[in-house]
Amino acid sequence: MSKQSPVIAPSILAADFARLGEDTAAALAAGADWVHFDVMDNHYVPNLTIGPMVLQSLRKYGISAPIDVHLMVKPVDRIVPDFAKAGATLISFHPEASEHVDRTIGLIKDSGCKAGLVFNPATSLDCLDYVLDKLDLVLIMSVNPGFGGQKFIPMALEKLRRVRRMIDERDLPVRLEVDGGVTAENIGAIAAAGADTFVAGSAIFHAKDYRAEIAAMHAAIG
Amino acid sequence: MSKQSPVIAPSILAADFARLGEDTAAALAAGADWVHFDVMDNHYVPNLTIGPMVLQSLRKYGISAPIDVHLMVKPVDRIVPDFAKAGATLISFHPEASEHVDRTIGLIKDSGCKAGLVFNPATSLDCLDYVLDKLDLVLIMSVNPGFGGQKFIPMALEKLRRVRRMIDERDLPVRLEVDGGVTAENIGAIAAAGADTFVAGSAIFHAKDYRAEIAAMHAAIG
Amino acid sequence: MSKQSPVIAPSILAADFARLGEDTAAALAAGADWVHFDVMDNHYVPNLTIGPMVLQSLRKYGISAPIDVHLMVKPVDRIVPDFAKAGATLISFHPEASEHVDRTIGLIKDSGCKAGLVFNPATSLDCLDYVLDKLDLVLIMSVNPGFGGQKFIPMALEKLRRVRRMIDERDLPVRLEVDGGVTAENIGAIAAAGADTFVAGSAIFHAKDYRAEIAAMHAAIG
Amino acid sequence: MSKQSPVIAPSILAADFARLGEDTAAALAAGADWVHFDVMDNHYVPNLTIGPMVLQSLRKYGISAPIDVHLMVKPVDRIVPDFAKAGATLISFHPEASEHVDRTIGLIKDSGCKAGLVFNPATSLDCLDYVLDKLDLVLIMSVNPGFGGQKFIPMALEKLRRVRRMIDERDLPVRLEVDGGVTAENIGAIAAAGADTFVAGSAIFHAKDYRAEIAAMHAAIG
Amino acid sequence: MSKQSPVIAPSILAADFARLGEDTAAALAAGADWVHFDVMDNHYVPNLTIGPMVLQSLRKYGISAPIDVHLMVKPVDRIVPDFAKAGATLISFHPEASEHVDRTIGLIKDSGCKAGLVFNPATSLDCLDYVLDKLDLVLIMSVNPGFGGQKFIPMALEKLRRVRRMIDERDLPVRLEVDGGVTAENIGAIAAAGADTFVAGSAIFHAKDYRAEIAAMHAAIG
Amino acid sequence: MSKQSPVIAPSILAADFARLGEDTAAALAAGADWVHFDVMDNHYVPNLTIGPMVLQSLRKYGISAPIDVHLMVKPVDRIVPDFAKAGATLISFHPEASEHVDRTIGLIKDSGCKAGLVFNPATSLDCLDYVLDKLDLVLIMSVNPGFGGQKFIPMALEKLRRVRRMIDERDLPVRLEVDGGVTAENIGAIAAAGADTFVAGSAIFHAKDYRAEIAAMHAAIG
Repeated sequence: MSKQSPVIAPSILAADFARLGEDTAAALAAGADWVHFDVMDNHYVPNLTIGPMVLQSLRKYGISAPIDVHLMVKPVDRIVPDFAKAGATLISFHPEASEHVDRTIGLIKDSGCKAGLVFNPATSLDCLDYVLDKLDLVLIMSVNPGFGGQKFIPMALEKLRRVRRMIDERDLPVRLEVDGGVTAENIGAIAAAGADTFVAGSAIFHAKDYRAEIAAMHAAIG
Repeated sequence: MSKQSPVIAPSILAADFARLGEDTAAALAAGADWVHFDVMDNHYVPNLTIGPMVLQSLRKYGISAPIDVHLMVKPVDRIVPDFAKAGATLISFHPEASEHVDRTIGLIKDSGCKAGLVFNPATSLDCLDYVLDKLDLVLIMSVNPGFGGQKFIPMALEKLRRVRRMIDERDLPVRLEVDGGVTAENIGAIAAAGADTFVAGSAIFHAKDYRAEIAAMHAAIG
Repeated sequence: MSKQSPVIAPSILAADFARLGEDTAAALAAGADWVHFDVMDNHYVPNLTIGPMVLQSLRKYGISAPIDVHLMVKPVDRIVPDFAKAGATLISFHPEASEHVDRTIGLIKDSGCKAGLVFNPATSLDCLDYVLDKLDLVLIMSVNPGFGGQKFIPMALEKLRRVRRMIDERDLPVRLEVDGGVTAENIGAIAAAGADTFVAGSAIFHAKDYRAEIAAMHAAIG
Repeated sequence: MSKQSPVIAPSILAADFARLGEDTAAALAAGADWVHFDVMDNHYVPNLTIGPMVLQSLRKYGISAPIDVHLMVKPVDRIVPDFAKAGATLISFHPEASEHVDRTIGLIKDSGCKAGLVFNPATSLDCLDYVLDKLDLVLIMSVNPGFGGQKFIPMALEKLRRVRRMIDERDLPVRLEVDGGVTAENIGAIAAAGADTFVAGSAIFHAKDYRAEIAAMHAAIG
Repeated sequence: MSKQSPVIAPSILAADFARLGEDTAAALAAGADWVHFDVMDNHYVPNLTIGPMVLQSLRKYGISAPIDVHLMVKPVDRIVPDFAKAGATLISFHPEASEHVDRTIGLIKDSGCKAGLVFNPATSLDCLDYVLDKLDLVLIMSVNPGFGGQKFIPMALEKLRRVRRMIDERDLPVRLEVDGGVTAENIGAIAAAGADTFVAGSAIFHAKDYRAEIAAMHAAIG
Repeated sequence: MSKQSPVIAPSILAADFARLGEDTAAALAAGADWVHFDVMDNHYVPNLTIGPMVLQSLRKYGISAPIDVHLMVKPVDRIVPDFAKAGATLISFHPEASEHVDRTIGLIKDSGCKAGLVFNPATSLDCLDYVLDKLDLVLIMSVNPGFGGQKFIPMALEKLRRVRRMIDERDLPVRLEVDGGVTAENIGAIAAAGADTFVAGSAIFHAKDYRAEIAAMHAAIG
C-alpha cells in the first residue's frame, strides 16, 4: 500500500453540467479531495466532453481544490498551455498520444503544472522505466477510457501492483491513481493493490448523499 | 432582406460554464430566441469546447428553446447522432469537414434534426448550387471560427447578399445566419445584407443587461 | 444528348463474388458493354470492397471487355499503378481525394489507362474548367458513394446537363457517366440530360433475366 | 508443442478470385480446416484486397468452415461489425492499429466472434501480459504483412516459443497461429516452436494437388 | 499585362546547396530580383527540401533581396512564424493546405510578412473572390508542385488571364506570379497573359551564364 | 565499453548552410569521422530541415566520408530510396514512425544502405529483441529530437548500458550511437556507458577551433 494519504477525486463528467460550479463545490464540501476533469476530443476516444473554458469557469466560481486533468486527446502538446492557463493543477496524458513522451512531460512542467501518465488496460508500462522519476502521478485505467457501460477490469489490480513496486523500489513521491468502475465495494482491494488516488464518477455524483458515499470510500481504504 | 422573423441566438461559449443552466435561461428570459452551441474538437479548429453531455444537461435543466449546434469538428458523421440524442434542434457543419456533404445533410435529417451548412470567410459557396434546397440554414462566418480576438470581416456582407439572392431566387424557407463580431452597432447593416439569424456571444453575455442588449439588437434590425 | 454510343456498365459490387468470373461473363454475354469495378478503402468511404487482385483474376478468367475502375479511396496515387498492372482500362478518382488532381490524371495516363474524374452530389465542377480536355470520362454520382440504400438524387440531372454543355462547347470526346439508382425506368431521362455511360448494379445483377433488363435499358435510351 | 489439434488455414488471397467459392470449397474438401481471410485497406499496409461482401458471398455459396479474418486495417473498430454480420468466425487485428486494444477485443466478442491479436515481426508482445486471457488466438507474423516476396523470418520461431510459454503457464485455451512462408518443409519446426494453427497461401493454392500438399503439412506436424 | 515592374525570382532548388550563399548571390548579381524558396514537407508533396534554418543562413550570409517562400506543406500555420523569424519577405501557401485560409493570411501578415496564395493546375480560383484584397501575391502553378520532369501546362495561361482580370477590375496592387517550366522562350507569352513575377529554376541555375539568361528573360518580357 | 573504434559525427544542422560544403569539409579535415544528417519533416517533429537534394550536393561537392542520415519523419518508407540515391551511407529511423519496422529495415538494406533504429528518451527498447541482429546501428537519443534548448538526459546512460549489454551478449557488430547534449565534458562518461559513435552539433560547429574540440572529445573517450 501507498504511504501517501488517500485522495478521492470525483470525475465531473458525472456532475450536472447545468450547475457545474454548485455540484463540484458540493462534492468538495462532502469530503472530496480533488476534482477530476476528463477531456475527450472525439479523436483519441469517440466522445467530446469539455475543454479549458469550462475549467476556467470553475476557478472563477471559486473552486480552489486541485484540478486533475485527464487528457484523452491526440495529439497532446498544443492544448497543454491552454489547460495550464485555465487553472489546471495536474495534467495527465496517454503515451500513445504523443510521439515525444519525455518532451510532453517537460512541457507540462514548464507550464507550471504537475505531470501524469495514463495507461490503457492493454498498454505496456515500459516507458515508466525511463520517465517515472519525472512524473507526479501514474494513472491506471481500469476501464477503456471514452466508452460507456464498462465494469472494473480485474487485471488492473495486477498492473497497480507492478507500478506500486516500481514506485516503492525507487522510493519516489509519485501518486498512483486508478480510474474506472471504482466503488465503495471494491476500493479496499484497489487500495491494497497500491493505489492512493481514486477517481469515481457516477458512484459519487449519482449517489443520494455525496458525503456518505465519500465517507464509505475513505472507510473502506482504511 | 429576409422575410423570416429575426432570431437572436446567444452563443453560450460566452456564458458562465459554472452556472450554465441559469445563465442560458437568463438570456432566453431576456428575449433571446435560440441557444447557439459552439462545438470545437481541437482538430478542425485549435480549441476544444463542449460536447453532447453539456447539451443534454441544458435540456434536463429545462431549456426548451431551439438549440442550434455549430460543429467545428472534423470528421462530422460519427458525432451527429450523439448531438441529436442529446437534444439538438439544428446541426450545422463545414463542407470542408465532410467528404460526403450531401450524405451528412441526410444523416442529420434522418436523426431528427434540422441541417445547416457553415462557410468560412474564404470558402466558396459552390456546393450550395446542389444542396441548398435540402438545408434549413446557411451560416456565414464573419470571423474565422475557433480563433479569438477577431473583428467582423466586411466581405461577409457580400457573401450574405449572394446567399440571400440564391435563397430568394429559389424561394426557399432557408434561414441565413451570421456569426462573428455581431453587435447592436452593425446588426442593422448585416440584416440589410440578408441575414435573419444572428449569433452573438460576448455582446450579450458580457453585457451588463442582457435584455437591453437584445432589445437594442432587435431594434436595430427594425 | 451525347453523340457517343451508349454504354451499359454493370457494377460487379452487385454480382456474386463466389462466382465472379461466371457472373461477370454472363452480364457481358447478356449485352453489357463494360465492367464497372467499385473500389472502397474504408477511409474515403466507410466500406471496403475489392482491390487489384480481384481485377486481375477477371482478366485471367478471360474477361476482355473494358474494365472501368471507380476509386473511392484516399489518397489515390500509390494504388494507381497496381490497378493498371492488374488490367484496368479506365481509372476514375474523386478530386477531393488527391491534392494534385492534374498530376494524378497524368499518372493514370502514363500508366497506360484512360482517366476519369468523379463528382459527389455536393461537389463543385470547378476543376473541370482546367482539366476537362485531359479526361476520357466524367462520372456524376447520383447517390453518395459508399453508403447503401439510396435513391437517385434528382439534382444529378442538372449536374449532367452542365457537364454535357461543357463537353459539347469544347467538342471533346469525353464520356459522361452516371452512377447510382439508375434503372430502366429513369435511364431515358438521364440520357436526355446528357449521360452516355450508365452504371447499374442491383438493377442488372439482381434481375431475373440480365438480358431482358439490359435490353430494356438500351431501349429506354432510344 | 500445443495440446490443441492442428489446424491448416489456407489464405484465400492465393485462390482464384474469379471462382472463389469453388476454389475455397476445393481446399476444404482437400483437408483444410479453416479459411484464412486477409483484409488490407491500403493504409495499414500498401495493398487493398477484399472486404465483408466477399466474405458474405462465401457463406451464401455454402462454405460453413470457420472463417478466420485477419484485419490489416487501421483503424479497426468501425469495420468489425461488418465482418461479424457477414459471417466471420474469428477476427484478428494488430495492436498498433487500435488505440484501445482491450476495448476492440471486447467489441469483437460482443459482435459474436472470437478474437485474435496479430504481432508484426518487430512488435513487442507486451500487451499480452494484460489481455492474453481474453483472446482466442494469437497470430505471429513470420513475414511483414502486406508486402510480397518474403521468406519465413527465423526470429518468428523464438517469438512463437515465448507465446507458447505464456499460454502454457496460464493454461489457456488460446490458439497460436503463424502466417508467412509456411511450407511442408518448415511446418514441422514451426509446430515444434509451439504453433498449432498454420496459414498457408500459395503453398496450397498454387500446388498442383491441394490434398497432397495439405496431407504433407499434416504429416510434417506429426 | 501588369502595370508592375517585372520580377525574376530564381528558385534556389536548382542552385548548388553546397555553396548556397555564393550561388544565390551570383544569381542576384546577375540581375535576379528576388530569391524563390521552395519548401516541401514530404506530406503535401512527395519530397522534402529545405526549411527555416537554411533561409536564416542566407540572411546571415548577407542576402538582402526579397525572399519569396512557397510553402508546399500541410498544415501551414505552425511553421509560418519560423519562416518569418528566419527572414522571409513573403510567404505563400496552398488553399487546400489550410482549413482556415483567411486566418492563415492574417497570421502571415501579423508575423510581418507579405502573403500569397498558390493555385495548383486543377484548383479553382473561387476563394479569391473573398480574399484577393488581402493578398500581396497570387501564384499560379504551371506544373504540379513537388513532382519532377514536367513541362509548362498551357491551361495556366488562361488561369493567369482570369486572375489578371480580377486584379485589374479591383485595381489592386497584387503581384501575379507563375512557377513551372518558365524559359526565355515562353516568358513573353506568359507576361502577355498577365504575369509580372516569374520563377525560374534550372533555366537560370543550370545556364552557363546566369546574367545572359536573366537578361534574355527580361528582354522577352519587353 | 564498445570494442569498435570511436566515431565522432558532427551534425550539420549546426553548420553554416550558406557554405555547407566548405563547413562540412572543414569538420572532416579537423578529425571528424562521419557526417550526421538530421532530417525533420514538420510532422514527426515540429521543425523542417533538409532533404535528399542537400545530401546529394554534399556528395557532388566531394564529401566522401560516411553520411549518417537520421530520419525524424513519419511515415518513413517513401523517402528511403530518395536518400539512398542521393548518397546516404546509413539511414536510421524511429520505430514509432513505421507500422512495419522489420520491413523498413529490409527496405533500407535493399536500397544499398546500412540501417539504424533510433529510440526517443521514453521509448521502450523491446523491438530490439527481434531485430537487433539485422541492424548496423542503434541510436539512443539523449534529448528529445526536434526541440531546441535541451540538456543531456541522464537516464540515457542507463539506456546505453542496456543496449550495450544486448549487443555484447549476442556479440554483434552493431554500432551504438548517442545524440543530444554531447560535449567534451560528458563524452567520457557516455563512452563508459557503452556508446561508440557520438553526434555533436553546436559543440563542434560553434567551437572556435573544430580540430581542438574534436581532439578533446577523442581524448576524453580514451
